[in-house]
Amino acid sequence: MMSLAELQRRIDHGDLSADDAIAQSCAATDERDKTIGAFVCRAKGARAASTGPLRGIAVGIKDIIDTSDFPTEMGSTIYRGWRPRADAPVVMMLKQAGATIVGKTTTTAFAANDPTATLNPHNPAHTPGGSSSGSAAAVGAGMIPLALGTQTGGSVIRPASFCGVAAIKPTYRLLPTVGVKCFSWTLDTVGLFAAGVRDLAHGLAAMTGRPELLPGAASSAPRIGVVMQDFAGEPEAAGSEALRIALAAAERAGASVRALALPEIIAEAWRIHPTVQQFEAHQAFAWEYRVNYDAMPPLLRGRLDESRGTTPAEYDEARRIADRARAALAAIFEDIDVLLTFSAPGAAPKGLASTGDARFNRLWTLMGTPCVNVPATIAEGGLPVGVQVIAGFGDDAGALEAARFVEEALARG
Amino acid sequence: MMSLAELQRRIDHGDLSADDAIAQSCAATDERDKTIGAFVCRAKGARAASTGPLRGIAVGIKDIIDTSDFPTEMGSTIYRGWRPRADAPVVMMLKQAGATIVGKTTTTAFAANDPTATLNPHNPAHTPGGSSSGSAAAVGAGMIPLALGTQTGGSVIRPASFCGVAAIKPTYRLLPTVGVKCFSWTLDTVGLFAAGVRDLAHGLAAMTGRPELLPGAASSAPRIGVVMQDFAGEPEAAGSEALRIALAAAERAGASVRALALPEIIAEAWRIHPTVQQFEAHQAFAWEYRVNYDAMPPLLRGRLDESRGTTPAEYDEARRIADRARAALAAIFEDIDVLLTFSAPGAAPKGLASTGDARFNRLWTLMGTPCVNVPATIAEGGLPVGVQVIAGFGDDAGALEAARFVEEALARG
Repeated sequence: MMSLAELQRRIDHGDLSADDAIAQSCAATDERDKTIGAFVCRAKGARAASTGPLRGIAVGIKDIIDTSDFPTEMGSTIYRGWRPRADAPVVMMLKQAGATIVGKTTTTAFAANDPTATLNPHNPAHTPGGSSSGSAAAVGAGMIPLALGTQTGGSVIRPASFCGVAAIKPTYRLLPTVGVKCFSWTLDTVGLFAAGVRDLAHGLAAMTGRPELLPGAASSAPRIGVVMQDFAGEPEAAGSEALRIALAAAERAGASVRALALPEIIAEAWRIHPTVQQFEAHQAFAWEYRVNYDAMPPLLRGRLDESRGTTPAEYDEARRIADRARAALAAIFEDIDVLLTFSAPGAAPKGLASTGDARFNRLWTLMGTPCVNVPATIAEGGLPVGVQVIAGFGDDAGALEAARFVEEALARG
Repeated sequence: MMSLAELQRRIDHGDLSADDAIAQSCAATDERDKTIGAFVCRAKGARAASTGPLRGIAVGIKDIIDTSDFPTEMGSTIYRGWRPRADAPVVMMLKQAGATIVGKTTTTAFAANDPTATLNPHNPAHTPGGSSSGSAAAVGAGMIPLALGTQTGGSVIRPASFCGVAAIKPTYRLLPTVGVKCFSWTLDTVGLFAAGVRDLAHGLAAMTGRPELLPGAASSAPRIGVVMQDFAGEPEAAGSEALRIALAAAERAGASVRALALPEIIAEAWRIHPTVQQFEAHQAFAWEYRVNYDAMPPLLRGRLDESRGTTPAEYDEARRIADRARAALAAIFEDIDVLLTFSAPGAAPKGLASTGDARFNRLWTLMGTPCVNVPATIAEGGLPVGVQVIAGFGDDAGALEAARFVEEALARG
């Protein structure tokens, strides 16, 4: 994979020109995307900016995010050839920091469950996960050093785990969702994919103008609470093994680790996530569902059909549960620095019919807390499996620092 | 003005056909909009739906709200001829309830301060207010019974006061802002304009599928806390007089009224509203401001120029102040039902250069609480002046009920 931080260092030191860095990404994409299919469309003659912390950094943008110079097709025929007028604010943040947008990456239709044709870069017989399929696969295949995705259930952390890349779903609304096709306004969160945790930190700091997100000299040993999310069911063997390996490495490196039982209100929040998501989706997709029913992607349409009866009262009650759970979770973070849990039930499922299961992700999307995927192990078939580091609401710096600690501990073995 | 509730009653009883109701609105608009200029564009051959609680109700949509069958030009040459693909969810809510969208109403450019050419329907030498200029003027002139606007500072309540119409800025996110041009995602709120408070309640209940918003048989006498918002400066004589008249009427009708001093944290929230608004506006308008600087509306561009230096740390601190103020405000609503205050400093200013001042509105937009404008008096020049009824977060039914009480008390004189 291409390390954003390493490219930055070489460009800053004059060892590599920004244009050559972009050219390397384009050449790698030319070669690898023929088999992976991570891009929907690509820039012709992409050039580097001359200034900015991300000059020379080639970025792929999930195709539900508005771009003024590429079509934005949402993975659906309903938006075939659609050209937004403006760049979404997150795209402008990248451009203002000097990054070069080299193309749009595949998305499941409307960032729901209907799969793309994109292949897992580690094993073409498996899904890369979704909904940010192309962004995870393009970084995982070493085509580009940075990509944007979005998460409403588990659409950043899960494909990152399946594709063996680092990813952050930042605190809710640290990055604006303006100009991003809405699924659920309470849940939708823009996230970043990169080779490693340092790379995520450099990318997010440059986008937001928040230098406090940059990694310090050494990450201090975190107090880790381990949560199994029993309410979400059992993980597969590969998911358990990834968590076991990460915990053992973190403990060896000096972290304090203890098992935590989450209070019942948090389990309730996990249960009502779909109520919030689907009630809002019925409003967000009202035009597509009512006016273009036959052209709707079948899995999403089926979920909308099933959830038609959700009432405002059920939605209001679900939001009250979420509010209480957020308060309960904030209290838990008074005694620990981060939580550690599964990024996905196991390795990427076989075939492309399913993008996998978001059951270990969706709670944290509803809580709005920052989550980082750290690749932890390689399962059968060469398939990566990650773990999920979660910090308190607004503590993106803490999430990144602890994730880097876990990543370094794993690298020492 | 045309009463939505009265039109509904006549259509339900078979005294008026839904198509005739739409034809009446179109005829009134043909006649009055030649001088007022409330519409940007209008539907040709508008027809009524055959079912739904809002069948026969002609609605105008502020031109920053996406529509699939009209251009959406944002009041700016940057979006001249722009055609969104989809209807915004609030537009679909209206259509699903049977309403007929008869056109797009004028908006100040990007819902900021650069004025439109729309005239005040009560005195053509005065502004109708903004930013939802056309929506307030079209309802105030009796062209249509319902219109949508948006508020980031005071863009619903203020023009409603100036144009002598009832309006509600509902609780933050009761109505989705998806497909609405973003100014500030923490503040932007979609609101409704109608002839009276009952009409607002019928419109909002139909849009949201929340029958609890419908008015009961009789509104009970509310406990009213009167707030002068001293931190926002002094009102003009006409604003003071409107509040005095409304309070006297409410007291005569049996309401308990007492003066309330708001705690310092709430005054602080008033002060930091512009920090939240402008920091987010720099992201929301990044493409327009960076790529189309010369074509930006001058007043908005000037405000963006001035606020370029706002830091993430200042923004984070402003959000913390807002959170604390929301908690302090919730405690106040334990002892009272609603607050009553000015809708605007006074009557509509003369000329079209300024749309007026949002200083008595912006706090409540930041608090996310439901606000209703109730017309209270007529000042010199035939210009209406309203008062603002505010309930606790999420208590839209309470805001509407108390506003109806005040409206009825004023009608009894």
